[in-house]
Amino acid sequence: MKLYDLDVSGNCYKVRLFASFIDIPLTIVPVDFMNGEHKTDGFLQLNPWGEIPVLEDGDIVLRDSQAILIYLANKYGGEAWWPSEANLQADVMQWLSTASNEIKHGVGEARLIKKFGLESDWTQASERAHKTLTLIDNHLSKHNWLAASRPTIADCAVYPYISIAHEGHIDIDKYSNIQVWMNRLQQLPNYISMPGN
Amino acid sequence: MKLYDLDVSGNCYKVRLFASFIDIPLTIVPVDFMNGEHKTDGFLQLNPWGEIPVLEDGDIVLRDSQAILIYLANKYGGEAWWPSEANLQADVMQWLSTASNEIKHGVGEARLIKKFGLESDWTQASERAHKTLTLIDNHLSKHNWLAASRPTIADCAVYPYISIAHEGHIDIDKYSNIQVWMNRLQQLPNYISMPGN
Repeated sequence: MKLYDLDVSGNCYKVRLFASFIDIPLTIVPVDFMNGEHKTDGFLQLNPWGEIPVLEDGDIVLRDSQAILIYLANKYGGEAWWPSEANLQADVMQWLSTASNEIKHGVGEARLIKKFGLESDWTQASERAHKTLTLIDNHLSKHNWLAASRPTIADCAVYPYISIAHEGHIDIDKYSNIQVWMNRLQQLPNYISMPGN
Repeated sequence: MKLYDLDVSGNCYKVRLFASFIDIPLTIVPVDFMNGEHKTDGFLQLNPWGEIPVLEDGDIVLRDSQAILIYLANKYGGEAWWPSEANLQADVMQWLSTASNEIKHGVGEARLIKKFGLESDWTQASERAHKTLTLIDNHLSKHNWLAASRPTIADCAVYPYISIAHEGHIDIDKYSNIQVWMNRLQQLPNYISMPGN
């Protein structure tokens, strides 16, 4: 199973982290993102969206880190990480949407601006980041894990960009419940880190 | 089952549309969004994110339209609309992420700017919208439905904001495959419209 990957991408790290948690070997195919390999014809044939990560498992090719998490959890991870019961699955899904929307356009965008020179409004991204972090911190004041009362792909999807928020000059020290949750996640068996966290 | 709803919200319409397709009765609870009811203490107790739609099914309370679609499909809609097989489920999920990310921040944001006076950059939203619409149109040149070769919640999630793109001054006439797909979806039994489409 191949993961088209960039080591400093939080979205790629989501997949590497979860694959490690469930002990699936991945063949890492580094994509030369900085030199635009993801916009070449060859890569666009694999993923017309020109984005990473991409997972290739035999004939199956998947874009979007959240979809890849669901695929791996459903096929290899079992019930624990991606419940089949409707209300628990929806509970996890709420946080997958948070990852692909609020996290991406908050802490994720702030990091793109500060670390990779994206031309966008850092103040706006920072406001979005802190609004979302406050909501997550409040949620974690009553819950050990984001969804379903156990570690799920929700945690794997939301954790990465928060864990490297400082690279976007977003200070998360004051979010004490997030700090405890991040520490809890880091203690899970087979946890791996990424550059910056 | 209660849906906290706003008639002109594409996210609420996603839920109404899908509930109609699978013939589930919803008790519609209109939220006075224009007067800020979604920011009142009462509403924030229901959904701390201060957003609609919210679905209430007995003790279960769900935010996020994509999560609500998964819940309804999983609990009431059966295999057809939300496959359980890993690769098909991930295929659908790719498009749920597209709905909560690219669609929201493209055609969705352009509409918020033009119809509701959101202060944001229309040119940037329009560029994002057309980039995404081009990718979707290309995909639909080879597929009748977005995912899994059949109508699924992927179509229900992506269709609403595209169907009202004109309200954000985004012209979708040139996307011929999208036009055919929208027409195909409108022919499904129990299709319902929303204001503007």
